Amino acid sequence: MEIKEQLEIIKRGSDELLIEEELVDKLKSGRPLRIKAGFDPTAPDLHLGHTVLINKMRQLQDLGHHILFLIGDFTAMIGDPTGKNATRPPLSGAQIKQNAETYTTQVFKILDLRKTEICFNSSWMAKLSAADMIKLAATHTVARMLERDDFGKRYRSNQPIAIHEFLYPLVQGYDSVTMRADMELGGTDQKFNLLMGRELQKHWGQPPQCVLTMPLLEGVDGVNKMSKSLGNYIGITESPEQIFGKLMSVSDELMWRYIEMLSFDSLATIRRWKQEVEAGRNPRDVKVTFAREIVARFHNRAAADKALANFEARFKQGEVPENIPEITLPTEGEPILIYQVLKQAGLTASTSEAIRMIEQGGVKMNGEKVSDKALKLAAGGPFVLQVGKRKFAKVLLS
Amino acid sequence: MEIKEQLEIIKRGSDELLIEEELVDKLKSGRPLRIKAGFDPTAPDLHLGHTVLINKMRQLQDLGHHILFLIGDFTAMIGDPTGKNATRPPLSGAQIKQNAETYTTQVFKILDLRKTEICFNSSWMAKLSAADMIKLAATHTVARMLERDDFGKRYRSNQPIAIHEFLYPLVQGYDSVTMRADMELGGTDQKFNLLMGRELQKHWGQPPQCVLTMPLLEGVDGVNKMSKSLGNYIGITESPEQIFGKLMSVSDELMWRYIEMLSFDSLATIRRWKQEVEAGRNPRDVKVTFAREIVARFHNRAAADKALANFEARFKQGEVPENIPEITLPTEGEPILIYQVLKQAGLTASTSEAIRMIEQGGVKMNGEKVSDKALKLAAGGPFVLQVGKRKFAKVLLS
Repeated sequence: MEIKEQLEIIKRGSDELLIEEELVDKLKSGRPLRIKAGFDPTAPDLHLGHTVLINKMRQLQDLGHHILFLIGDFTAMIGDPTGKNATRPPLSGAQIKQNAETYTTQVFKILDLRKTEICFNSSWMAKLSAADMIKLAATHTVARMLERDDFGKRYRSNQPIAIHEFLYPLVQGYDSVTMRADMELGGTDQKFNLLMGRELQKHWGQPPQCVLTMPLLEGVDGVNKMSKSLGNYIGITESPEQIFGKLMSVSDELMWRYIEMLSFDSLATIRRWKQEVEAGRNPRDVKVTFAREIVARFHNRAAADKALANFEARFKQGEVPENIPEITLPTEGEPILIYQVLKQAGLTASTSEAIRMIEQGGVKMNGEKVSDKALKLAAGGPFVLQVGKRKFAKVLLS
Repeated sequence: MEIKEQLEIIKRGSDELLIEEELVDKLKSGRPLRIKAGFDPTAPDLHLGHTVLINKMRQLQDLGHHILFLIGDFTAMIGDPTGKNATRPPLSGAQIKQNAETYTTQVFKILDLRKTEICFNSSWMAKLSAADMIKLAATHTVARMLERDDFGKRYRSNQPIAIHEFLYPLVQGYDSVTMRADMELGGTDQKFNLLMGRELQKHWGQPPQCVLTMPLLEGVDGVNKMSKSLGNYIGITESPEQIFGKLMSVSDELMWRYIEMLSFDSLATIRRWKQEVEAGRNPRDVKVTFAREIVARFHNRAAADKALANFEARFKQGEVPENIPEITLPTEGEPILIYQVLKQAGLTASTSEAIRMIEQGGVKMNGEKVSDKALKLAAGGPFVLQVGKRKFAKVLLS
């Protein structure tokens, strides 16, 4: 394949490539490049947000490059030594091994197992002495570390930064030295740490790695970064029906973003779809094609077909009319109770009627019965709400 | 001995004791306290400035306490990993061993060898892993480190601080943990690092060490801190004549400071001397007594007597009058050539006459013939200058 074509694939959906000229030179060599991407073994449940990076790794794999899937177990074993962060307890070797297995089982739904090398940075970091760590720390200045956005902000606002936090980016950069990485992938929020790898490789006399950052995928709300704790995620181990339904619920605008970042369809195909929609094709059709692709990726094609059939049956059964009113409600940043949404959308006369309707099983959201009257909806949507057989509204929470 | 008396001896000549109440409690226990003092093995030639601390250790030894003489070889073996400081090359184990021997030979002119334990921090620090170093770094914040005067100043003036520089105070503090020190001694410039020991001991659940700081001794110029590189030092391996002569050359004011910090005579005796001088006694007599004490300490009493006799003979021979004019000359911070000093002090009519007199061997400084006409005098003094047999001046360079 031409370098230019390779480059187009590599850059697709990415945020930044540093430094393109260097990557071109590396590609010209014709050898498989060593592509590093680091993962934290603390959260084994992957969602679509994680797969943006993993897809890019797969694309690079398909271009013939060598993927180094790095599990950052060294720092995970240390945890947060200040003890202030209760959500980061140190993990034992056994826990990490178990997490890593769950992790890789999920990851190899996308990556080609045979072309992937799994590395644990404890295998070299555990051998490093305090003196080595001191020498590593000597390679950078305090001022350079405070250039990292979050460090700078915390320092200026008098929030404590423990000194070991300055060491972690160095450890991550040193991984690149040990791994002799040609390129490292990461989220845009990792740019500083990825550049550390470049700097340390230069310090150790190696050609510096290129850095490719991928944007952070928004959650189904279209507002916040996809995250398990925000509840706006689509987990890759969710059922075909869940994945399909959640993807069908995203706004048309967010759909294009998801397609760009998650679909393996060619850029030419995606361009054609856009033209078709602009010419009047229902975006829902594109969404269906895309949702089937994603379900098939994490389950299989039959499951995708079944999820589509179920989805359509539910909507047919529910007789969701083609044109239902669209309503935007302000959230003021706080999730809203479903019965208040129902009343504010004019679907019930009062909140007490709304609660009664939920209790009687007469309320559906996106085709599914709502049974929890304490359910809260966060900013996002649209949510297709149905009360009884005839009342519908498409609600967007702003 | 009463606690109060012990405390008076401990505090004599010191700058600060933290925290006195805690030390009193430790002394009340009646057990020998573990007293730590750390030394850098890079500069084996000790001068009187170093002995301020070593004297204090000796006094504590005489009070029955246990002296832990720590040689900071771990960091010396690392040197300056940034490579920016050419004066701090990493030292090999063999060099350190050799330096340590020279060191201790000199130190045991003051300390009681039998009551001293020599420790090398490499013996525990070399066993520390990178992970241990990270945990150690997690005990303190960046902001806390920037509270250290020199770090704060450098940060504010955009001078680089390498990150490992933040680790060295932690290493020094961790030494106190390993050594279970009850008290640590150091120069006033070490206060921050000594307090690290307190903080880390608390972190490791130990009672915190007390901290006793000693002032930095001025050099014979009475202006700058005594230092080999500034040339204003009195080395403890210098000849009896050199030590005696240099001590006799210091100003009367500086003499009292030296006596307070270096003499082993009792505070009562020193108070009596001061009263006598105030009542008219020649301070030179006190200076002679003190200079003999110091020479005897590093050589022996006979050598001290001989140095005194030589000194007096030289002055008699030189017929230095009792009252000679005192002249202060401005230096503007730069050392001045001796022939210019001679002219400016009015001892010669011109610089060419001054040069000629030096060449003819007709110029003496502090009773010794000046043979180097390119000699430069730095700020300080007084210098007793003599040209020919009759012209004298006591010159102070401001």
